[in-house]
Amino acid sequence: MENINTYIDQHKDRFLNELTELLKIPSISADSAFSQDVIDTAEIVRLSLERAGCDSTEICETDGYPIVYGEKIIDANLPTVLVYGHYDVQPPDPMELWNSPPFEPVIKATALHPQGAIFARGACDDKGQMYMHVKALELMVKTGQLPCNVKFMIEGEEEVGSNNLAVFVAEHKEKLANDIILISDTGMIANDTPSITTGLRGLSYVEVEVTGPNRDLHSGLYGGAVANPINILAKMVASLHDDDNHITIPGFYDKVEELSESERAEMAKAPFSLEEYKSALNIEAVYGEKDYSTNERNSIRPTLDVNGIWGGYIGEGAKTVIASKAYAKISMRLVPHQDWKEITRLFTEHFENIAPEGVTVKVTPHHGGQGYVTPIDTIAYQAASTAYEKTFGKTPIPQRSGGSIPIVSLFEKELGSKTILMGFGLDSDAIHSPNEHFGVWNYLKGIETIPYFYEYFTEMSS
Amino acid sequence: MENINTYIDQHKDRFLNELTELLKIPSISADSAFSQDVIDTAEIVRLSLERAGCDSTEICETDGYPIVYGEKIIDANLPTVLVYGHYDVQPPDPMELWNSPPFEPVIKATALHPQGAIFARGACDDKGQMYMHVKALELMVKTGQLPCNVKFMIEGEEEVGSNNLAVFVAEHKEKLANDIILISDTGMIANDTPSITTGLRGLSYVEVEVTGPNRDLHSGLYGGAVANPINILAKMVASLHDDDNHITIPGFYDKVEELSESERAEMAKAPFSLEEYKSALNIEAVYGEKDYSTNERNSIRPTLDVNGIWGGYIGEGAKTVIASKAYAKISMRLVPHQDWKEITRLFTEHFENIAPEGVTVKVTPHHGGQGYVTPIDTIAYQAASTAYEKTFGKTPIPQRSGGSIPIVSLFEKELGSKTILMGFGLDSDAIHSPNEHFGVWNYLKGIETIPYFYEYFTEMSS
Repeated sequence: MENINTYIDQHKDRFLNELTELLKIPSISADSAFSQDVIDTAEIVRLSLERAGCDSTEICETDGYPIVYGEKIIDANLPTVLVYGHYDVQPPDPMELWNSPPFEPVIKATALHPQGAIFARGACDDKGQMYMHVKALELMVKTGQLPCNVKFMIEGEEEVGSNNLAVFVAEHKEKLANDIILISDTGMIANDTPSITTGLRGLSYVEVEVTGPNRDLHSGLYGGAVANPINILAKMVASLHDDDNHITIPGFYDKVEELSESERAEMAKAPFSLEEYKSALNIEAVYGEKDYSTNERNSIRPTLDVNGIWGGYIGEGAKTVIASKAYAKISMRLVPHQDWKEITRLFTEHFENIAPEGVTVKVTPHHGGQGYVTPIDTIAYQAASTAYEKTFGKTPIPQRSGGSIPIVSLFEKELGSKTILMGFGLDSDAIHSPNEHFGVWNYLKGIETIPYFYEYFTEMSS
Repeated sequence: MENINTYIDQHKDRFLNELTELLKIPSISADSAFSQDVIDTAEIVRLSLERAGCDSTEICETDGYPIVYGEKIIDANLPTVLVYGHYDVQPPDPMELWNSPPFEPVIKATALHPQGAIFARGACDDKGQMYMHVKALELMVKTGQLPCNVKFMIEGEEEVGSNNLAVFVAEHKEKLANDIILISDTGMIANDTPSITTGLRGLSYVEVEVTGPNRDLHSGLYGGAVANPINILAKMVASLHDDDNHITIPGFYDKVEELSESERAEMAKAPFSLEEYKSALNIEAVYGEKDYSTNERNSIRPTLDVNGIWGGYIGEGAKTVIASKAYAKISMRLVPHQDWKEITRLFTEHFENIAPEGVTVKVTPHHGGQGYVTPIDTIAYQAASTAYEKTFGKTPIPQRSGGSIPIVSLFEKELGSKTILMGFGLDSDAIHSPNEHFGVWNYLKGIETIPYFYEYFTEMSS
């Protein structure tokens, strides 16, 4: 690969401007009020692939939001890289905590991003990281250095469970045939400590509804005499963890992969400062499952978190009411060997079982996905590792992530191919939170590193 | 008293129309968006008192919403009745559960109200019951039968804690001097089973805020490793009751009045069908403090209920977030001898004590008030009882209510007078709930019964 840095230098302002335009569109897949924005974004992504040098591009309709497909096939005998990413974003709530509007991108310097970071919903997750691949393709095509075939599959429903992507993949195995799947939808440890994600947690996301009396009641007249759905929901949610913060759902841990002491010792070598961690979150203490470290708790251990709860009167002032219903959104992060459908079933059965007399309970699964562990003794891992060494000057650290990309294990099952996770964001980039951002340095470093992966992967495959 | 029924028959359509107009104004004191409506309602109530025959009326400004005052003094040697009521209403949420808009009153028949009930927020609590007194005054004045002096004090902040009424009462003891305070802001057992409320519970209403990390976090990257404020709030709320549904706040029961076995046996004689109670609420089982009956649980026992809870993502779809903050509105109903300020302090100390490391907790008291027990060996009780006998043909049953009218015990302290609670609504009238209503029969029966109370009270006092 030659002249990569020269090309990036010449075009970096345009690279940033193009990403800025993409970030202005509120492609929030979870909220149907934004459906036209999601659809508009698909077309912009398709056009960007065409302009970057794809031979053919298309908008593939699904039962939900479309999948953008593009490809450049230069030689059937060469390897094929399938790039996966997503153009939808998380809802921006709570809006009042954003320092600038979530869909009006601005570039500001931060402590970790002294060269500036672009602040917008989707800046890192995943528009920014996805668009690095579009620009890396442009770079390789325009400088005549694309070493292999490439296919893009960019979806619009990652933040709501990728249900239609699964159908699409199953129905287009030949079109999507590849030698390696390349995804940038994870992070790395620090700008001076590159890492490659080697494990993802699975996910089961459910919504629960607890119904007590058939209407809201006056808390004076009925208080203490009927089951209050909010108190009951609190009791039920509280009972899902024991005093050691183990999850109490029967069978929940049955298939959890237990790491050996030596594996745990290896993990413990990753650079980590508990003081910095607490300080960054402004908390006095961490909290979690007994006998596990913070890094273990959020990577190799399954968890259960309430992501939202509501019921009764939540407006200004006071209302002395006993609500008829209370609700919660609950997600469980799963580790290898836990099957998300089985866990969803175990949760549902347990939650129904623990409901006391006087209330009824409804559990509605939202979505889910399997966990994944990527092997590191593969050509793809070696190619990625060498690419980071080339551009960062350091060997990246293999690292399990606590996050989930549920579709990854499905790719392996349907397409028979492994996935390599080259993330360039930082955990502190506030994805899914107010003030999400992505370092300008990281964005350009991604565009610089990706072509080397193509080069080394092609060389090592031959 | 003569010609009462004739007068009511001739004017009942107008009585209903006037109430309907009053119910159209959304005088929601808890929500500042409706402040002009609350103020407008005060003036309408003042005008209604003037037209009903008060010699003087005024709008008394406070630091909050105004108090409407009116009086008709016919002879300083005769007794004086002080009527208290409120013109503000509860917020109507949740709007989607109303069968007709809360501020567009309609009359419909129901199983318990075959002659029709007027459906609107405030129909029973308290505009409808308050307006019975205005119309009863009109009846007595226009038929030349007012037997004593009368004063009206109608406030606009009952649903938000009556804070300014307390100041007003303390500053106007002479103006408000009276021999008995008369309130219709409670209910009775059934249309064929009149009852007089002899006890009210006190109230402590607080809002709690649990803060974990300094921003919303991605539940994949941080799940299991930091305290999730919603899970913690659920755990803390759940811990406020033990397995027997006793409240766990240290000192909470210290001053609770314990009834003797004979008193409890007397209470148990009140007509009550558990099957009908469950059926009316569509619940399979009641729920509450061990070793107490349903009627005891909601009258002579203190309780703790969450009236509202919220945190995290509560929109459509799914968001994998760990919220920075979670909130709840919590109210405690108190029984005689429990001091609401002491209970608020005990709650606050306990809630702060049980917060685990990794979160901070803030407790904000909303409002509160003392409980009250009215004696039944008084002239006022006998006058009220005889009035019910006259118009219902049955002796009313003395009954403790689970509700609170916090200002009642303050009236006794500041003005030295007892209160008599003549309620004409039913527990099933859905006050504080969607589809609040008030029976047309009950409204007119109240207007018919009240003048007899004036007559008997004046006679018995002489």
